[in-house]
Amino acid sequence: MPTAKPPAAKPKTRLYADAATLAAGLTVELSPAQAHQLRNVLRLAAGDAVALFNRRDGEWLGRIAGLGKGWATVELAERMRPPAPPPHPSPDLWLVFAPVKGGRVEAVVEKATELGVSALLPVLTERSVVDRVNVERLAAHAVEAAEQCERLDVPPVHQPQRLDRLIASWPAGRRLLLCDESGAAPPLAQALLADPAWRSAPAAVLTGPEGGFAETELDALRKLPFVSSVGLGPRVLRADTAALAALSVYQALAGDWHHYRGAA
Amino acid sequence: MPTAKPPAAKPKTRLYADAATLAAGLTVELSPAQAHQLRNVLRLAAGDAVALFNRRDGEWLGRIAGLGKGWATVELAERMRPPAPPPHPSPDLWLVFAPVKGGRVEAVVEKATELGVSALLPVLTERSVVDRVNVERLAAHAVEAAEQCERLDVPPVHQPQRLDRLIASWPAGRRLLLCDESGAAPPLAQALLADPAWRSAPAAVLTGPEGGFAETELDALRKLPFVSSVGLGPRVLRADTAALAALSVYQALAGDWHHYRGAA
Repeated sequence: MPTAKPPAAKPKTRLYADAATLAAGLTVELSPAQAHQLRNVLRLAAGDAVALFNRRDGEWLGRIAGLGKGWATVELAERMRPPAPPPHPSPDLWLVFAPVKGGRVEAVVEKATELGVSALLPVLTERSVVDRVNVERLAAHAVEAAEQCERLDVPPVHQPQRLDRLIASWPAGRRLLLCDESGAAPPLAQALLADPAWRSAPAAVLTGPEGGFAETELDALRKLPFVSSVGLGPRVLRADTAALAALSVYQALAGDWHHYRGAA
Repeated sequence: MPTAKPPAAKPKTRLYADAATLAAGLTVELSPAQAHQLRNVLRLAAGDAVALFNRRDGEWLGRIAGLGKGWATVELAERMRPPAPPPHPSPDLWLVFAPVKGGRVEAVVEKATELGVSALLPVLTERSVVDRVNVERLAAHAVEAAEQCERLDVPPVHQPQRLDRLIASWPAGRRLLLCDESGAAPPLAQALLADPAWRSAPAAVLTGPEGGFAETELDALRKLPFVSSVGLGPRVLRADTAALAALSVYQALAGDWHHYRGAA
Protein backbone atom coordinates (compact mmCIF):
# COMPACT_ATOMS: atom_id res chain seq x y z
CA MET A 1 0.00 0.00 0.00
CA PRO A 2 1.47 3.37 -0.93
CA THR A 3 2.08 5.68 2.01
CA ALA A 4 1.59 9.42 1.83
CA LYS A 5 4.82 11.27 1.23
CA PRO A 6 5.80 13.17 4.39
CA PRO A 7 5.54 16.93 3.93
CA ALA A 8 8.86 18.64 3.26
CA ALA A 9 10.31 20.43 6.29
CA LYS A 10 9.88 24.18 5.87
CA PRO A 11 13.29 25.81 5.45
CA LYS A 12 13.95 28.84 7.61
CA THR A 13 15.29 30.86 4.70
CA ARG A 14 12.88 32.19 2.08
CA LEU A 15 14.23 34.16 -0.86
CA TYR A 16 12.33 36.17 -3.45
CA ALA A 17 13.22 35.00 -6.97
CA ASP A 18 11.45 37.63 -9.01
CA ALA A 19 12.89 36.99 -12.46
CA ALA A 20 13.46 33.23 -12.26
CA THR A 21 11.20 30.45 -13.40
CA LEU A 22 10.65 28.02 -10.55
CA ALA A 23 10.00 24.36 -11.37
CA ALA A 24 11.10 20.93 -10.18
CA GLY A 25 14.65 20.02 -11.15
CA LEU A 26 15.64 23.53 -12.27
CA THR A 27 18.78 25.16 -10.96
CA VAL A 28 18.29 28.85 -10.24
CA GLU A 29 21.02 31.45 -9.98
CA LEU A 30 20.64 33.90 -7.09
CA SER A 31 21.63 37.57 -7.04
CA PRO A 32 25.03 38.56 -5.60
CA ALA A 33 23.22 40.15 -2.62
CA GLN A 34 21.32 36.93 -1.91
CA ALA A 35 24.53 34.91 -2.25
CA HIS A 36 26.17 37.24 0.27
CA GLN A 37 23.25 36.80 2.65
CA LEU A 38 23.37 33.00 2.47
CA ARG A 39 27.14 32.76 2.80
CA ASN A 40 28.17 35.61 5.07
CA VAL A 41 25.08 36.49 7.07
CA LEU A 42 23.28 33.17 7.49
CA ARG A 43 26.48 31.07 7.12
CA LEU A 44 24.75 28.42 5.06
CA ALA A 45 26.61 25.95 2.81
CA ALA A 46 25.99 23.77 -0.23
CA GLY A 47 23.34 21.18 0.59
CA ASP A 48 21.38 23.41 2.99
CA ALA A 49 17.67 23.81 2.35
CA VAL A 50 16.20 27.14 1.23
CA ALA A 51 12.87 28.15 -0.29
CA LEU A 52 12.48 30.35 -3.37
CA PHE A 53 9.23 32.11 -4.21
CA ASN A 54 7.56 34.46 -6.61
CA ARG A 55 4.02 35.34 -7.47
CA ARG A 56 3.94 33.43 -10.78
CA ASP A 57 5.30 30.09 -9.63
CA GLY A 58 4.55 29.95 -5.90
CA GLU A 59 7.04 28.72 -3.31
CA TRP A 60 9.58 25.95 -3.95
CA LEU A 61 11.77 23.87 -1.71
CA GLY A 62 15.38 23.65 -2.86
CA ARG A 63 18.94 23.02 -1.77
CA ILE A 64 21.99 25.19 -2.23
CA ALA A 65 23.82 23.56 -5.15
CA GLY A 66 26.82 25.89 -5.19
CA LEU A 67 27.92 28.89 -3.17
CA GLY A 68 30.90 31.22 -3.57
CA LYS A 69 31.85 34.84 -3.26
CA GLY A 70 29.05 36.78 -4.97
CA TRP A 71 27.28 33.79 -6.52
CA ALA A 72 24.96 31.00 -5.45
CA THR A 73 22.78 28.43 -7.17
CA VAL A 74 19.77 26.59 -5.81
CA GLU A 75 18.41 23.32 -7.18
CA LEU A 76 14.66 23.10 -6.82
CA ALA A 77 12.96 19.92 -5.62
CA GLU A 78 9.25 20.36 -4.99
CA ARG A 79 6.55 22.96 -4.72
CA MET A 80 5.44 23.87 -1.22
CA ARG A 81 2.78 26.48 -2.10
CA PRO A 82 0.83 27.14 -5.30
CA PRO A 83 1.16 30.51 -7.11
CA ALA A 84 -1.94 32.25 -5.76
CA PRO A 85 -1.31 33.44 -2.21
CA PRO A 86 -3.29 31.17 0.10
CA PRO A 87 -6.15 30.93 0.41
CA HIS A 88 -6.61 33.36 -2.50
CA PRO A 89 -5.15 36.67 -3.79
CA SER A 90 -4.35 39.42 -1.30
CA PRO A 91 -6.70 42.40 -1.08
CA ASP A 92 -5.97 45.11 -3.65
CA LEU A 93 -5.01 47.78 -1.12
CA TRP A 94 -2.60 50.61 -1.86
CA LEU A 95 -0.83 52.68 0.74
CA VAL A 96 -0.47 56.28 -0.45
CA PHE A 97 1.77 58.07 2.05
CA ALA A 98 3.71 61.28 2.47
CA PRO A 99 7.23 60.09 3.35
CA VAL A 100 8.38 60.97 6.85
CA LYS A 101 11.81 61.65 8.28
CA GLY A 102 14.50 59.39 9.61
CA GLY A 103 14.15 55.63 9.60
CA ARG A 104 10.40 55.94 9.84
CA VAL A 105 9.75 55.63 6.13
CA GLU A 106 11.63 52.31 6.00
CA ALA A 107 9.54 51.04 8.91
CA VAL A 108 6.35 52.07 7.09
CA VAL A 109 7.39 50.10 3.98
CA GLU A 110 8.37 47.06 6.04
CA LYS A 111 5.20 46.98 8.11
CA ALA A 112 2.86 47.86 5.25
CA THR A 113 4.31 44.90 3.34
CA GLU A 114 3.68 42.61 6.31
CA LEU A 115 0.16 44.03 6.55
CA GLY A 116 -0.46 42.98 2.96
CA VAL A 117 -0.57 46.14 0.82
CA SER A 118 -0.52 45.58 -2.93
CA ALA A 119 1.45 48.77 -3.79
CA LEU A 120 3.30 51.57 -2.01
CA LEU A 121 2.91 55.09 -3.44
CA PRO A 122 4.94 57.91 -1.86
CA VAL A 123 3.37 61.32 -2.47
CA LEU A 124 4.42 64.92 -1.95
CA THR A 125 1.88 67.12 -0.20
CA GLU A 126 1.77 70.83 0.58
CA ARG A 127 3.36 70.40 3.99
CA SER A 128 5.74 67.60 3.01
CA VAL A 129 9.15 68.00 4.64
CA VAL A 130 10.70 65.02 2.91
CA ASP A 131 10.60 65.41 -0.87
CA ARG A 132 13.02 62.70 -1.91
CA VAL A 133 12.96 59.00 -1.25
CA ASN A 134 15.39 56.30 -2.22
CA VAL A 135 12.95 54.08 -4.09
CA GLU A 136 15.50 51.32 -4.67
CA ARG A 137 16.31 51.14 -0.97
CA LEU A 138 12.63 51.09 -0.01
CA ALA A 139 11.99 48.34 -2.57
CA ALA A 140 14.74 46.27 -0.94
CA HIS A 141 12.96 46.69 2.41
CA ALA A 142 9.72 45.49 0.81
CA VAL A 143 11.48 42.37 -0.55
CA GLU A 144 12.99 41.61 2.85
CA ALA A 145 9.63 42.04 4.59
CA ALA A 146 7.91 39.79 2.03
CA GLU A 147 10.56 37.10 2.57
CA GLN A 148 10.00 37.31 6.31
CA CYS A 149 6.19 37.41 6.37
CA GLU A 150 5.55 34.51 3.94
CA ARG A 151 3.96 36.57 1.18
CA LEU A 152 4.45 35.26 -2.35
CA ASP A 153 4.38 38.71 -3.95
CA VAL A 154 6.26 41.91 -3.20
CA PRO A 155 4.39 45.23 -3.37
CA PRO A 156 6.02 47.63 -5.87
CA VAL A 157 7.34 50.94 -4.49
CA HIS A 158 6.43 53.71 -6.95
CA GLN A 159 8.43 56.85 -7.71
CA PRO A 160 7.25 59.77 -5.55
CA GLN A 161 4.74 62.04 -7.23
CA ARG A 162 2.67 65.06 -6.27
CA LEU A 163 -0.54 64.15 -4.46
CA ASP A 164 -2.65 66.44 -6.66
CA ARG A 165 -1.33 64.74 -9.81
CA LEU A 166 -2.02 61.27 -8.44
CA ILE A 167 -5.54 62.34 -7.53
CA ALA A 168 -6.08 63.88 -10.98
CA SER A 169 -5.34 60.51 -12.60
CA TRP A 170 -7.01 58.37 -9.92
CA PRO A 171 -8.13 55.00 -11.34
CA ALA A 172 -11.86 54.49 -11.75
CA GLY A 173 -13.37 52.14 -9.20
CA ARG A 174 -10.67 52.48 -6.52
CA ARG A 175 -11.88 53.92 -3.22
CA LEU A 176 -9.69 56.06 -0.99
CA LEU A 177 -9.68 56.19 2.83
CA LEU A 178 -8.40 59.63 3.81
CA CYS A 179 -6.90 59.49 7.32
CA ASP A 180 -8.14 62.83 8.62
CA GLU A 181 -6.65 64.01 11.90
CA SER A 182 -9.01 66.99 12.20
CA GLY A 183 -11.22 64.96 14.53
CA ALA A 184 -14.32 65.68 12.45
CA ALA A 185 -14.43 62.45 10.43
CA PRO A 186 -16.33 59.30 11.44
CA PRO A 187 -14.18 56.51 12.88
CA LEU A 188 -12.54 54.15 10.38
CA ALA A 189 -14.22 51.01 11.77
CA GLN A 190 -17.65 52.61 11.53
CA ALA A 191 -17.06 53.55 7.87
CA LEU A 192 -15.82 50.06 6.95
CA LEU A 193 -18.57 48.18 8.79
CA ALA A 194 -21.34 50.41 7.43
CA ASP A 195 -20.59 49.65 3.79
CA PRO A 196 -19.94 46.06 2.65
CA ALA A 197 -18.68 47.40 -0.69
CA TRP A 198 -15.31 47.99 1.02
CA ARG A 199 -14.84 44.23 0.99
CA SER A 200 -14.81 43.99 -2.79
CA ALA A 201 -13.57 47.30 -4.25
CA PRO A 202 -9.91 48.08 -4.85
CA ALA A 203 -8.94 50.48 -2.08
CA ALA A 204 -6.23 52.81 -0.83
CA VAL A 205 -5.25 54.32 2.50
CA LEU A 206 -3.89 57.90 2.37
CA THR A 207 -1.81 59.38 5.20
CA GLY A 208 -0.23 62.83 5.39
CA PRO A 209 3.17 64.21 6.40
CA GLU A 210 4.36 65.07 9.95
CA GLY A 211 2.44 68.35 9.94
CA GLY A 212 -0.75 66.88 8.49
CA PHE A 213 -2.59 67.88 5.34
CA ALA A 214 -3.24 71.54 4.58
CA GLU A 215 -6.85 72.64 5.06
CA THR A 216 -7.16 73.32 1.31
CA GLU A 217 -5.95 69.79 0.54
CA LEU A 218 -8.45 68.27 2.95
CA ASP A 219 -11.29 70.34 1.48
CA ALA A 220 -10.41 69.31 -2.07
CA LEU A 221 -10.04 65.64 -1.15
CA ARG A 222 -13.27 65.45 0.84
CA LYS A 223 -15.29 66.60 -2.18
CA LEU A 224 -14.15 63.73 -4.39
CA PRO A 225 -16.70 60.94 -4.87
CA PHE A 226 -14.18 58.14 -4.31
CA VAL A 227 -12.84 59.60 -1.02
CA SER A 228 -14.07 58.62 2.45
CA SER A 229 -12.67 60.78 5.22
CA VAL A 230 -12.10 58.73 8.39
CA GLY A 231 -10.80 59.28 11.90
CA LEU A 232 -8.26 57.20 13.84
CA GLY A 233 -9.35 57.87 17.39
CA PRO A 234 -8.96 60.60 19.98
CA ARG A 235 -5.16 60.77 20.10
CA VAL A 236 -2.92 62.47 17.54
CA LEU A 237 -1.04 59.67 15.79
CA ARG A 238 2.32 60.19 14.15
CA ALA A 239 2.17 59.84 10.37
CA ASP A 240 3.82 56.39 10.42
CA THR A 241 1.64 55.11 13.25
CA ALA A 242 -1.48 56.34 11.42
CA ALA A 243 -0.54 54.37 8.29
CA LEU A 244 0.01 51.12 10.16
CA ALA A 245 -3.06 51.51 12.35
CA ALA A 246 -5.32 52.22 9.36
CA LEU A 247 -3.94 49.28 7.35
CA SER A 248 -4.43 46.95 10.34
CA VAL A 249 -8.04 47.95 10.84
CA TYR A 250 -8.75 47.73 7.09
CA GLN A 251 -7.32 44.20 6.87
CA ALA A 252 -9.18 43.13 10.02
CA LEU A 253 -12.57 44.39 8.80
CA ALA A 254 -12.53 44.56 4.99
CA GLY A 255 -9.35 42.71 4.01
CA ASP A 256 -8.11 39.17 4.43
CA TRP A 257 -7.77 38.70 8.18
CA HIS A 258 -10.92 36.59 8.16
CA HIS A 259 -8.91 33.84 6.43
CA TYR A 260 -7.13 31.65 8.93
CA ARG A 261 -3.57 30.86 7.93
CA GLY A 262 -4.12 27.34 9.27
CA ALA A 263 -6.99 26.87 6.82
CA ALA A 264 -4.71 27.20 3.77
CA MET B 1 -22.09 93.74 26.38
CA PRO B 2 -19.33 91.34 27.42
CA THR B 3 -17.70 89.52 24.52
CA ALA B 4 -16.63 85.91 24.75
CA LYS B 5 -12.93 85.53 25.52
CA PRO B 6 -11.10 84.23 22.45
CA PRO B 7 -9.77 80.70 22.93
CA ALA B 8 -6.08 80.53 23.76
CA ALA B 9 -3.91 79.57 20.80
CA LYS B 10 -2.66 76.03 21.25
CA PRO B 11 1.10 76.08 21.82
CA LYS B 12 3.13 73.66 19.73
CA THR B 13 5.12 72.46 22.73
CA ARG B 14 3.46 70.18 25.28
CA LEU B 15 5.44 69.00 28.28
CA TYR B 16 4.52 66.35 30.83
CA ALA B 17 4.68 67.76 34.36
CA ASP B 18 4.18 64.61 36.38
CA ALA B 19 5.06 65.80 39.87
CA ALA B 20 3.92 69.43 39.63
CA THR B 21 0.60 70.91 40.66
CA LEU B 22 -0.86 72.84 37.75
CA ALA B 23 -3.11 75.84 38.50
CA ALA B 24 -3.60 79.42 37.31
CA GLY B 25 -0.85 81.79 38.38
CA LEU B 26 1.54 79.08 39.60
CA THR B 27 5.13 79.03 38.42
CA VAL B 28 6.36 75.50 37.72
CA GLU B 29 9.98 74.40 37.60
CA LEU B 30 10.82 72.05 34.72
CA SER B 31 13.36 69.21 34.75
CA PRO B 32 16.88 69.86 33.43
CA ALA B 33 16.06 67.63 30.43
CA GLN B 34 12.97 69.68 29.60
CA ALA B 35 14.94 72.91 30.01
CA HIS B 36 17.53 71.56 27.60
CA GLN B 37 14.81 70.65 25.11
CA LEU B 38 13.22 74.12 25.24
CA ARG B 39 16.49 76.02 25.03
CA ASN B 40 18.76 73.93 22.84
CA VAL B 41 16.46 71.76 20.74
CA LEU B 42 13.39 73.93 20.20
CA ARG B 43 15.31 77.26 20.66
CA LEU B 44 12.50 78.85 22.65
CA ALA B 45 13.00 81.88 24.91
CA ALA B 46 11.36 83.55 27.90
CA GLY B 47 7.85 84.68 26.96
CA ASP B 48 7.19 81.82 24.53
CA ALA B 49 4.02 79.80 25.05
CA VAL B 50 4.16 76.17 26.17
CA ALA B 51 1.57 73.77 27.59
CA LEU B 52 2.08 71.62 30.69
CA PHE B 53 -0.07 68.60 31.44
CA ASN B 54 -0.62 65.73 33.81
CA ARG B 55 -3.42 63.35 34.56
CA ARG B 56 -4.48 65.00 37.82
CA ASP B 57 -4.71 68.62 36.69
CA GLY B 58 -5.30 68.43 32.93
CA GLU B 59 -3.52 70.65 30.41
CA TRP B 60 -2.51 74.26 31.09
CA LEU B 61 -1.37 77.10 28.90
CA GLY B 62 1.71 78.92 30.20
CA ARG B 63 4.66 81.06 29.20
CA ILE B 64 8.33 80.48 29.80
CA ALA B 65 9.14 82.75 32.75
CA GLY B 66 12.85 81.99 32.93
CA LEU B 67 15.25 79.79 30.99
CA GLY B 68 18.94 79.05 31.53
CA LYS B 69 21.43 76.21 31.28
CA GLY B 70 19.71 73.24 32.92
CA TRP B 71 16.73 75.11 34.36
CA ALA B 72 13.46 76.59 33.19
CA THR B 73 10.29 77.91 34.80
CA VAL B 74 6.83 78.20 33.31
CA GLU B 75 4.12 80.52 34.60
CA LEU B 76 0.67 79.05 34.09
CA ALA B 77 -2.22 81.13 32.79
CA GLU B 78 -5.32 79.11 32.04
CA ARG B 79 -6.58 75.58 31.73
CA MET B 80 -7.03 74.29 28.20
CA ARG B 81 -8.28 70.77 29.03
CA PRO B 82 -9.85 69.30 32.16
CA PRO B 83 -8.13 66.40 34.01
CA ALA B 84 -10.10 63.48 32.56
CA PRO B 85 -8.85 62.70 29.07
CA PRO B 86 -11.51 63.89 26.62
CA PRO B 87 -14.15 62.86 26.22
CA HIS B 88 -13.65 60.44 29.13
CA PRO B 89 -10.95 58.11 30.54
CA SER B 90 -8.91 56.02 28.12
CA PRO B 91 -9.62 52.29 27.86
CA ASP B 92 -7.86 50.17 30.46
CA LEU B 93 -5.71 48.24 28.01
CA TRP B 94 -2.31 46.78 28.87
CA LEU B 95 0.30 45.74 26.34
CA VAL B 96 2.17 42.67 27.58
CA PHE B 97 5.06 42.08 25.20
CA ALA B 98 8.25 40.10 24.87
CA PRO B 99 10.91 42.74 24.12
CA VAL B 100 12.47 42.48 20.67
CA LYS B 101 15.89 43.43 19.38
CA GLY B 102 17.33 46.69 18.14
CA GLY B 103 15.33 49.87 18.11
CA ARG B 104 12.12 47.91 17.73
CA VAL B 105 11.27 47.87 21.42
CA GLU B 106 11.47 51.68 21.58
CA ALA B 107 9.13 51.92 18.57
CA VAL B 108 6.67 49.56 20.28
CA VAL B 109 6.61 51.75 23.41
CA GLU B 110 6.20 54.92 21.35
CA LYS B 111 3.41 53.60 19.17
CA ALA B 112 1.60 51.73 21.94
CA THR B 113 1.52 55.02 23.89
CA GLU B 114 0.04 56.80 20.86
CA LEU B 115 -2.46 53.97 20.52
CA GLY B 116 -3.61 54.60 24.08
CA VAL B 117 -2.38 51.70 26.22
CA SER B 118 -2.74 52.19 29.96
CA ALA B 119 0.40 50.21 30.92
CA LEU B 120 3.39 48.56 29.24
CA LEU B 121 4.54 45.22 30.69
CA PRO B 122 7.69 43.63 29.21
CA VAL B 123 7.78 39.87 29.80
CA LEU B 124 10.34 37.11 29.35
CA THR B 125 9.12 34.02 27.54
CA GLU B 126 10.70 30.65 26.78
CA ARG B 127 12.07 31.79 23.43
CA SER B 128 12.93 35.35 24.47
CA VAL B 129 16.21 36.52 22.97
CA VAL B 130 16.20 39.88 24.73
CA ASP B 131 16.15 39.44 28.52
CA ARG B 132 17.05 42.95 29.63
CA VAL B 133 15.38 46.24 28.92
CA ASN B 134 16.30 49.73 29.96
CA VAL B 135 13.05 50.60 31.72
CA GLU B 136 14.08 54.20 32.37
CA ARG B 137 14.85 54.77 28.72
CA LEU B 138 11.59 53.18 27.60
CA ALA B 139 9.68 55.33 30.12
CA ALA B 140 11.28 58.44 28.56
CA HIS B 141 10.00 57.27 25.14
CA ALA B 142 6.50 56.89 26.61
CA VAL B 143 6.64 60.46 28.00
CA GLU B 144 7.77 61.83 24.65
CA ALA B 145 5.03 59.97 22.80
CA ALA B 146 2.39 61.19 25.26
CA GLU B 147 3.60 64.79 24.80
CA GLN B 148 3.31 64.37 21.03
CA CYS B 149 -0.05 62.58 20.83
CA GLU B 150 -2.00 64.86 23.21
CA ARG B 151 -2.59 62.29 25.92
CA LEU B 152 -2.88 63.66 29.44
CA ASP B 153 -1.47 60.54 31.08
CA VAL B 154 1.67 58.50 30.45
CA PRO B 155 1.47 54.70 30.59
CA PRO B 156 3.90 53.27 33.16
CA VAL B 157 6.61 50.91 31.87
CA HIS B 158 6.95 48.00 34.30
CA GLN B 159 10.10 46.07 35.18
CA PRO B 160 10.44 42.96 32.98
CA GLN B 161 9.14 39.79 34.60
CA ARG B 162 8.67 36.17 33.60
CA LEU B 163 5.46 35.58 31.67
CA ASP B 164 4.52 32.56 33.81
CA ARG B 165 4.84 34.64 36.99
CA LEU B 166 2.72 37.45 35.57
CA ILE B 167 0.08 34.92 34.53
CA ALA B 168 0.16 33.26 37.97
CA SER B 169 -0.74 36.59 39.59
CA TRP B 170 -3.08 37.79 36.82
CA PRO B 171 -5.65 40.30 38.16
CA ALA B 172 -9.23 39.08 38.43
CA GLY B 173 -11.55 40.53 35.80
CA ARG B 174 -8.87 41.48 33.24
CA ARG B 175 -9.19 39.66 29.91
CA LEU B 176 -6.18 38.74 27.77
CA LEU B 177 -5.97 38.67 23.97
CA LEU B 178 -3.24 36.17 23.08
CA CYS B 179 -1.84 36.99 19.62
CA ASP B 180 -1.41 33.47 18.31
CA GLU B 181 0.57 33.11 15.09
CA SER B 182 -0.19 29.40 14.72
CA GLY B 183 -3.01 30.21 12.30
CA ALA B 184 -5.53 28.17 14.27
CA ALA B 185 -7.13 31.00 16.24
CA PRO B 186 -10.19 32.98 15.14
CA PRO B 187 -9.45 36.46 13.76
CA LEU B 188 -9.15 39.28 16.29
CA ALA B 189 -12.01 41.35 14.82
CA GLN B 190 -14.36 38.36 14.95
CA ALA B 191 -13.55 37.76 18.63
CA LEU B 192 -14.03 41.42 19.57
CA LEU B 193 -17.26 41.89 17.62
CA ALA B 194 -18.80 38.64 18.89
CA ASP B 195 -18.62 39.63 22.56
CA PRO B 196 -19.70 43.13 23.68
CA ALA B 197 -18.09 42.47 27.08
CA TRP B 198 -14.74 43.45 25.50
CA ARG B 199 -15.99 47.03 25.52
CA SER B 200 -16.22 47.24 29.30
CA ALA B 201 -13.70 44.81 30.82
CA PRO B 202 -10.09 45.74 31.56
CA ALA B 203 -8.06 44.05 28.85
CA ALA B 204 -4.54 43.20 27.73
CA VAL B 205 -2.86 42.31 24.44
CA LEU B 206 -0.05 39.73 24.66
CA THR B 207 2.59 39.35 21.93
CA GLY B 208 5.54 36.97 21.82
CA PRO B 209 9.23 37.28 20.96
CA GLU B 210 10.82 37.06 17.48
CA GLY B 211 10.56 33.26 17.45
CA GLY B 212 6.99 33.16 18.75
CA PHE B 213 5.68 31.41 21.83
CA ALA B 214 6.70 27.83 22.60
CA GLU B 215 3.99 25.23 22.00
CA THR B 216 3.88 24.46 25.73
CA GLU B 217 3.36 28.15 26.53
CA LEU B 218 0.52 28.41 24.00
CA ASP B 219 -1.13 25.27 25.39
CA ALA B 220 -0.95 26.56 28.96
CA LEU B 221 -2.23 30.02 28.02
CA ARG B 222 -5.12 28.76 25.90
CA LYS B 223 -6.51 26.78 28.87
CA LEU B 224 -6.88 29.84 31.08
CA PRO B 225 -10.42 31.19 31.45
CA PHE B 226 -9.39 34.84 30.93
CA VAL B 227 -7.42 34.15 27.72
CA SER B 228 -8.82 34.50 24.20
CA SER B 229 -6.50 33.23 21.51
CA VAL B 230 -6.79 35.36 18.35
CA GLY B 231 -5.23 35.48 14.89
CA LEU B 232 -3.84 38.50 13.03
CA GLY B 233 -4.35 37.44 9.44
CA PRO B 234 -2.69 35.19 6.89
CA ARG B 235 0.78 36.76 6.90
CA VAL B 236 3.44 36.22 9.56
CA LEU B 237 3.80 39.53 11.36
CA ARG B 238 6.96 40.56 13.15
CA ALA B 239 6.54 40.77 16.92
CA ASP B 240 6.48 44.58 16.89
CA THR B 241 4.06 44.78 13.97
CA ALA B 242 1.75 42.28 15.69
CA ALA B 243 1.59 44.41 18.85
CA LEU B 244 0.70 47.60 16.96
CA ALA B 245 -1.78 45.90 14.67
CA ALA B 246 -3.59 44.21 17.57
CA LEU B 247 -3.75 47.44 19.61
CA SER B 248 -5.11 49.34 16.57
CA VAL B 249 -7.88 46.82 15.96
CA TYR B 250 -8.75 46.68 19.67
CA GLN B 251 -9.07 50.48 19.91
CA ALA B 252 -11.09 50.62 16.68
CA LEU B 253 -13.59 47.96 17.79
CA ALA B 254 -13.63 47.81 21.59
CA GLY B 255 -11.65 50.87 22.67
CA ASP B 256 -12.12 54.59 22.28
CA TRP B 257 -11.90 55.21 18.53
CA HIS B 258 -15.67 55.67 18.43
CA HIS B 259 -15.16 59.03 20.17
CA TYR B 260 -14.46 61.81 17.71
CA ARG B 261 -11.66 64.10 18.85
CA GLY B 262 -13.71 66.97 17.47
CA ALA B 263 -16.54 66.06 19.83
CA ALA B 264 -14.50 66.82 22.96
